[in-house]
Amino acid sequence: MPHWHRAVFIGRFQPFHLGHLDAVKQILQETDELIIAVGSAQYSHTLENPFTSGERIEMMRIGLEAAGIDLRRIMIIPIPDIGEHSLWAARLKSMLPQFDAVYTNNQFVKLLLEEQRITVIEPKLQNRDELNATNIRNLMIRNEDWRRLLQPEVAKFIVQIKGDERIRKIASSEQKVQQLPRGATQ
Amino acid sequence: MPHWHRAVFIGRFQPFHLGHLDAVKQILQETDELIIAVGSAQYSHTLENPFTSGERIEMMRIGLEAAGIDLRRIMIIPIPDIGEHSLWAARLKSMLPQFDAVYTNNQFVKLLLEEQRITVIEPKLQNRDELNATNIRNLMIRNEDWRRLLQPEVAKFIVQIKGDERIRKIASSEQKVQQLPRGATQ
Amino acid sequence: MPHWHRAVFIGRFQPFHLGHLDAVKQILQETDELIIAVGSAQYSHTLENPFTSGERIEMMRIGLEAAGIDLRRIMIIPIPDIGEHSLWAARLKSMLPQFDAVYTNNQFVKLLLEEQRITVIEPKLQNRDELNATNIRNLMIRNEDWRRLLQPEVAKFIVQIKGDERIRKIASSEQKVQQLPRGATQ
Amino acid sequence: MPHWHRAVFIGRFQPFHLGHLDAVKQILQETDELIIAVGSAQYSHTLENPFTSGERIEMMRIGLEAAGIDLRRIMIIPIPDIGEHSLWAARLKSMLPQFDAVYTNNQFVKLLLEEQRITVIEPKLQNRDELNATNIRNLMIRNEDWRRLLQPEVAKFIVQIKGDERIRKIASSEQKVQQLPRGATQ
Amino acid sequence: MPHWHRAVFIGRFQPFHLGHLDAVKQILQETDELIIAVGSAQYSHTLENPFTSGERIEMMRIGLEAAGIDLRRIMIIPIPDIGEHSLWAARLKSMLPQFDAVYTNNQFVKLLLEEQRITVIEPKLQNRDELNATNIRNLMIRNEDWRRLLQPEVAKFIVQIKGDERIRKIASSEQKVQQLPRGATQ
Amino acid sequence: MPHWHRAVFIGRFQPFHLGHLDAVKQILQETDELIIAVGSAQYSHTLENPFTSGERIEMMRIGLEAAGIDLRRIMIIPIPDIGEHSLWAARLKSMLPQFDAVYTNNQFVKLLLEEQRITVIEPKLQNRDELNATNIRNLMIRNEDWRRLLQPEVAKFIVQIKGDERIRKIASSEQKVQQLPRGATQ
Repeated sequence: MPHWHRAVFIGRFQPFHLGHLDAVKQILQETDELIIAVGSAQYSHTLENPFTSGERIEMMRIGLEAAGIDLRRIMIIPIPDIGEHSLWAARLKSMLPQFDAVYTNNQFVKLLLEEQRITVIEPKLQNRDELNATNIRNLMIRNEDWRRLLQPEVAKFIVQIKGDERIRKIASSEQKVQQLPRGATQ
Repeated sequence: MPHWHRAVFIGRFQPFHLGHLDAVKQILQETDELIIAVGSAQYSHTLENPFTSGERIEMMRIGLEAAGIDLRRIMIIPIPDIGEHSLWAARLKSMLPQFDAVYTNNQFVKLLLEEQRITVIEPKLQNRDELNATNIRNLMIRNEDWRRLLQPEVAKFIVQIKGDERIRKIASSEQKVQQLPRGATQ
Repeated sequence: MPHWHRAVFIGRFQPFHLGHLDAVKQILQETDELIIAVGSAQYSHTLENPFTSGERIEMMRIGLEAAGIDLRRIMIIPIPDIGEHSLWAARLKSMLPQFDAVYTNNQFVKLLLEEQRITVIEPKLQNRDELNATNIRNLMIRNEDWRRLLQPEVAKFIVQIKGDERIRKIASSEQKVQQLPRGATQ
Repeated sequence: MPHWHRAVFIGRFQPFHLGHLDAVKQILQETDELIIAVGSAQYSHTLENPFTSGERIEMMRIGLEAAGIDLRRIMIIPIPDIGEHSLWAARLKSMLPQFDAVYTNNQFVKLLLEEQRITVIEPKLQNRDELNATNIRNLMIRNEDWRRLLQPEVAKFIVQIKGDERIRKIASSEQKVQQLPRGATQ
Repeated sequence: MPHWHRAVFIGRFQPFHLGHLDAVKQILQETDELIIAVGSAQYSHTLENPFTSGERIEMMRIGLEAAGIDLRRIMIIPIPDIGEHSLWAARLKSMLPQFDAVYTNNQFVKLLLEEQRITVIEPKLQNRDELNATNIRNLMIRNEDWRRLLQPEVAKFIVQIKGDERIRKIASSEQKVQQLPRGATQ
Repeated sequence: MPHWHRAVFIGRFQPFHLGHLDAVKQILQETDELIIAVGSAQYSHTLENPFTSGERIEMMRIGLEAAGIDLRRIMIIPIPDIGEHSLWAARLKSMLPQFDAVYTNNQFVKLLLEEQRITVIEPKLQNRDELNATNIRNLMIRNEDWRRLLQPEVAKFIVQIKGDERIRKIASSEQKVQQLPRGATQ
């Protein structure tokens, strides 16, 4: 088992759920310090990226603290996407302190980083069918029970900033467009 | 019924049709001055945004004048979209004279503005099934009768700048892509 | 003397002063409709561009109305700068209704437009030594009498939005930097 | 048959295949010099644009040289897309040496250029069902025989830079998203 | 004396020096949690912004840890500049967890935030003549003793990444331009 | 003496002069193929960057051909600047075919490339006092004899596109600003 001085965990954390928390715990066994890189940082208020990077950082702080994780070992850093995929790895290196390895389950991120000879590791994921952010956002949209897939403290924060209501409003504004008669291009 | 000094009506006006005109008339009963904000101003030559903001402003001028509306009470101002939704309300405030309320039927715009504590009002829409811009663009694409849903002066302008022909060309260039064998990702 | 259906007057209007007003009156004798294009629209809060485009549009509306100019003949449209000068004329054409000629005293704008074969006319300027926006901004910075170079209604609006105070604050934050010992590069 | 001093052939060349080569040969009979404009230059690592513009230029050099085409008559110039379609023709003119006509089969490019009164010619395409880049990328994704639709030298280069493997990885990372239960919006 | 739940300290930290450290200590007496916002995050390799945001975050971590500051109370978050000053406050709010007040000595930042009704406090600065980043960068350029104005651990890190050498190279490449005969515009 | 398969020569070529030509000849003795990368490609119509990248490519073609250089060994590729210096080397690699070394006299480019471990070589420059582009642009502005520092064919092309007139117009529009009374900030 490798042991790093400083590793990076990359995700969008829309929202930060129990699967992410589990991955953080795993990775902390293999590194002294962990940078959590919040990808697609500039996006918010879409079905895929409902939360701002500020909100995502806040929910992670709440969750990590509630889980008793030592915050001294963690840095959370937002990384805005860049339109040119071939530059993304350079931006990541420019915006982060030096690091030894990257953990991610995103196959596309893996491709971009490995082409630049950066070491990539895939953290093991438990119960991925339920514990994935797309599923959780869909439960929010349908007003079904999404809270059990997050830490209660994180769920409470999302309700408090009306995050679940926001995503339902986004979804309903999109659906109106989709209900238009066939042939519609919008 | 509220009465504002200056209100804003937001839309993309692709194109400006009888439903928009009706909304303008309604809103003018509730405000002294009206700013018509032309959203997604930088886009043109797509199925969803076929007309430039210059063309859209011109068709609105033609339509408002033909309808006998007092142009002294109207300002038409283009607002380019911004990639970061969380900044859009700030851009709107920066690009417009001070205003008291916003009229829009776009639920997403409503969400963004209400999160910034801006008053939003939904104008009543008559005959929305037909009088919506997506429907009208589809009629243009199929070369069916779209002209009856616009003021004749506006329709004439669109024909004159070959706007209906343009959208058919855009649609046919897209369709070629879609007719490709399944599995195509483009 | 030419007579246009629709002409454009381009400036930054930082702020809108008596020289601009005089030019508008001149141009209105040579055209039916006048588009006032507010350049560098996205900039504000700098020494060169202290006011937002929304504030600039508002001061122009106030000034034109106070001068008894028929607002039905006027459109005020903000034009954001583009980093690529070779594209600026195309953006202008895309964001404005069709026009016949452009009035401007900006030699650089003149160059860009004439290379694209657009007719450019220089309005006559009275008392340019005093009636220029750079001079007026400098008077604001030094807290000297800038008000006499604007219409009183426009001056009042600027004071009301604390525009003169803003530019003094911007200037004082810049000066601190310049007072640093020689060799400083910032 | 027209004869140009300098003509342009526009495409994305994702990848450069036998249909493109055939078009180049045709066009060279009608012009002294040929500029090959590589569109969407900034994009790479997507299903639609897997290769960087550097890789595309390299594969074209290899292919043209292998075909015995006189490279002195050819310039290959990348053109980054611009978000505002109404400015694209101006960018093309700004980034290329002066030219007399444009060859393209892209109907959308044709529309944009003809609105700016640029002469557009559609090169004849042989066997377009197979010899199109979307089909070739799909064959790469399914690991079927794509090599016979390219020059062997170009195919070899793509394999050498692991280009076919790259597109399969991109496709598999996308498919995971698409296999999620219905209702998923991502 | 106010006491905040979460306050923000904004700077560019080019580099992080003893004056910054002193301010952090002060502010920590007035807040539970402190966000250090690293402004102009996207810039590097200029005389004014020699270090990447990743390097700046790393030097702050090193310095804060060496000073025995409890890292659990600190978040360091990069904020890229935006070309439109009127949107900057909105971006700050979007990229940070909720906060109660902002500490900064930058008068321009103060202006932008106060216009958006954000509470701004100026931390007391000791020995500002020497302890300012512009002075320190100038000492680096002249190869004079800059190290005594930083924590030794931070100075060591800068030397290790060849940061002082980098700024000298940047300065020498600029100076060549400035030594050109008068009339030069570059 | 090294010998490369493919080397790059980077410059802005504003304009392409006898010093550049001499460097190209030198480098061609050390490489099979030469890529000439035209930096700051998106800029034009400024004192520092008067010519578009299309114009610069055209003047290089004319000059290289006139000098009898084998165009089959040359590729000329425009590289737009990027606001984030830390990403520039990645963009260069993405937009060019694979290369072995870079020739440049720009110390800043050298710094950026060497930090990414790219081999950089400085071509020997003859008569740099006169043969530098800043000097030549200044001669153009003052309407002094700039033509003797370029190949006659290149000079003729510049006159034909009114390039020298353009730079004088740009300079005169700037000077007006500079002649304003002291205290002016624009």
